Amino acid sequence: MKFVIIGGDAAGMSAASRAKRMNPDMDVMVLEQTCDVSYSACGMPYNIADPQRDMDKLVVRKAQVFIEKNKINLLTGHRVTALDRGGKKVSGITIGGDPFVFDYDKLLIATGAVPVIHNLPGFDLPQVMVLKSLEDGKKIKAMIAQNTIKKAVIIGMGYIALEMCEAFEKRGIKISMVKPGSVFLPWLSSDLAMVVYQELTQKGIDIHSGVPIEKIVPLKNGVQVVCENLTLDADLVLAAFGVAPSSKMAKTAGLDLGISDSIAVDKYLQTSDKDIYAAGDCADAYHVVTDDKCWIPLALRANRAGWAVADNVCGRKTCLQGVAGTSVFKVFSLEVARSGLNFMEAADAGFDPVENNVKTRSRAHGQPDSTPIYINMVADKKTGRLLGAQMVGKEGVAHRINALAVALQNKMTVADFSQTDLAYAPPFGPVWDPLLTAANQLVKKI
Amino acid sequence: MKFVIIGGDAAGMSAASRAKRMNPDMDVMVLEQTCDVSYSACGMPYNIADPQRDMDKLVVRKAQVFIEKNKINLLTGHRVTALDRGGKKVSGITIGGDPFVFDYDKLLIATGAVPVIHNLPGFDLPQVMVLKSLEDGKKIKAMIAQNTIKKAVIIGMGYIALEMCEAFEKRGIKISMVKPGSVFLPWLSSDLAMVVYQELTQKGIDIHSGVPIEKIVPLKNGVQVVCENLTLDADLVLAAFGVAPSSKMAKTAGLDLGISDSIAVDKYLQTSDKDIYAAGDCADAYHVVTDDKCWIPLALRANRAGWAVADNVCGRKTCLQGVAGTSVFKVFSLEVARSGLNFMEAADAGFDPVENNVKTRSRAHGQPDSTPIYINMVADKKTGRLLGAQMVGKEGVAHRINALAVALQNKMTVADFSQTDLAYAPPFGPVWDPLLTAANQLVKKI
Repeated sequence: MKFVIIGGDAAGMSAASRAKRMNPDMDVMVLEQTCDVSYSACGMPYNIADPQRDMDKLVVRKAQVFIEKNKINLLTGHRVTALDRGGKKVSGITIGGDPFVFDYDKLLIATGAVPVIHNLPGFDLPQVMVLKSLEDGKKIKAMIAQNTIKKAVIIGMGYIALEMCEAFEKRGIKISMVKPGSVFLPWLSSDLAMVVYQELTQKGIDIHSGVPIEKIVPLKNGVQVVCENLTLDADLVLAAFGVAPSSKMAKTAGLDLGISDSIAVDKYLQTSDKDIYAAGDCADAYHVVTDDKCWIPLALRANRAGWAVADNVCGRKTCLQGVAGTSVFKVFSLEVARSGLNFMEAADAGFDPVENNVKTRSRAHGQPDSTPIYINMVADKKTGRLLGAQMVGKEGVAHRINALAVALQNKMTVADFSQTDLAYAPPFGPVWDPLLTAANQLVKKI
Repeated sequence: MKFVIIGGDAAGMSAASRAKRMNPDMDVMVLEQTCDVSYSACGMPYNIADPQRDMDKLVVRKAQVFIEKNKINLLTGHRVTALDRGGKKVSGITIGGDPFVFDYDKLLIATGAVPVIHNLPGFDLPQVMVLKSLEDGKKIKAMIAQNTIKKAVIIGMGYIALEMCEAFEKRGIKISMVKPGSVFLPWLSSDLAMVVYQELTQKGIDIHSGVPIEKIVPLKNGVQVVCENLTLDADLVLAAFGVAPSSKMAKTAGLDLGISDSIAVDKYLQTSDKDIYAAGDCADAYHVVTDDKCWIPLALRANRAGWAVADNVCGRKTCLQGVAGTSVFKVFSLEVARSGLNFMEAADAGFDPVENNVKTRSRAHGQPDSTPIYINMVADKKTGRLLGAQMVGKEGVAHRINALAVALQNKMTVADFSQTDLAYAPPFGPVWDPLLTAANQLVKKI
């Protein structure tokens, strides 16, 4: 059997490696458009922050290892441009300009996501960059190393924008952040968003929300980001508007698409074509809270889905449960985490949401170095079900959110969650864990 | 109604405060044998470690506050010695030697636990101490402050022993630990126990397991702990053999006792007498994994049970779910955590246990300062149910264990747990959270 995989990152390489492990005789081919496979994209901002660290350290395994050790037919620099479902062929062009065509028996589309680029004047200037590929990261890091960047403008305020904001600040670069949307972090409860906002402004970050961007124009040195009633000079502009599923080819081939034009898959990661799977940031998923489809591009899901596709292709039927959208990021001294739905998402999903905000602390009474932990927790008033939570704090947030993720997976009520036996020791938290305090108080509102 | 509570710590004061909040007219009396209420006993080792911190900072709320603000009839220095169930009276003696008798309508026994003291010669010497009451802690701290302790022997190797080991070390005291049992930390998987052992020996702690203790004899300066084939000189001996439920009075009054002579209670915290409740370290509980009774004295349960008793006494019927025995402690640079059953406990409870040990890391590939995380995970081979886990590591252990506690509460299988959507960001862990790696590997053994 010939198993062809388009895309050589988290989902693609997970699938390829597992398929080969399960079935060493299988002909597994991976077509990757760039020259890099299996690198930690999420690690790029942290790597850029540190001049001592080599960007190649982010590569988990080199292409050569997959080829020689795992016997995967890995072809880098191969960009697939068309999918012929009737003839079961993929075709495209190599980085050297040579066309190629390959047959498949089973196909996995693991093309990931692409940065959203607004079609505004000046976004094609060389000083305007995105952070998606390892190549992008290397370019940005090289520019910083050459000491040519004194001022940066970050367009967007998502995870990558915030993580890069910290990276730039650590490299001594002055940063402005700007975005058209009026709310700073709209997915975060406003109380918690304010904590993050204050952290950024205390670090000297210049933040402009609700500012439509008109164009970027070249200056003698650097560029100028021209917005409504605002101009920002920069040596580098990072366009971090967010990402979209890379699903154009799938769409052209007539595969069903789902939310945000992600490729629609069932719980077995199968697309509307029984011989084609999709996994990773290009595909949709079921949400454990709503049981509906969602598109939440996250690394763990990509790896897990890659494995599940390999299982299914190799004949071991594997069904994936849903995602909870559990995520965490670090911005300066803060850990920001969430899982499940926020209040607005809960309302949109048809729940009758009720929320509360609590401020507790990271360590027990009488312990030094205790810092505030802010929690927003959301439940359904009708059923008492826990729907989601968000947390911000300087410590004890990143891993605490996992307890909530497990609760959501089990569709627990807030009352039941409030009875869980969580760990306590003075250096690590109060007797009543912050999540329990939030749950205890939310129970009263239901 | 007259609600009398014996014991003014976690369970007792939680019950008293909540009862008064729910029913301000209720006559709530608390009889506490010592002069301190509502202090963080678990915080004592950490406080002793730091000469700058005042021991009174551990008091969450002073007795006076409960009396004046909460209108609780709190009587400190009142030791209850007898319970007359027929006459619904408690009697005892004050610290000043005066006898007292009080009627009750509803009674809560929240007498906590008492340190186990072996009846060996010399354990009554003034240099032999326990760490239970705030008074004990203050005495030890005062001795250290007077610079009279150069060498300490800790008898026992439980939580308090290990935490005090760190506290003494921080105060420049040379420490030997000794215990009769032959296994260093028998409740911990041997791989993980070895990690803790090495941490202690690297700190210069002198550890003797499997050494029966014969007596303690006074020296000209200090004392000598005489064991089989071993003598250890010390300026202070900390007897930390562990604790036992303080249930003597309950037993004498004919109340049913459970495991380890803890007071048997139902899920409403009611004892075998419908007008008497028990909560906190003196009472037993149901275990969420076995559904059987267990005795696991932990602070969170004590607080939660205190609240539940208040609810029930005030007419709001409240049933408590079980405990998972989730706990964590810090010993030098290590976080040590557990939840649920270990392999032996699982076998004893009638499961067909299977376990695995994995060593993963605390941060993502390519991130600096990543340290090992060791996990032991236990499941039932027959049903695939997750039964428990233990973790040791320098970071990311204390709060990670909570995800497991929630999974146990929901009686998840390892396969289902391995599908949970846990958080990922490079500074906080690998893409596959250590708990997921453990679960993924354990699934293969089932």
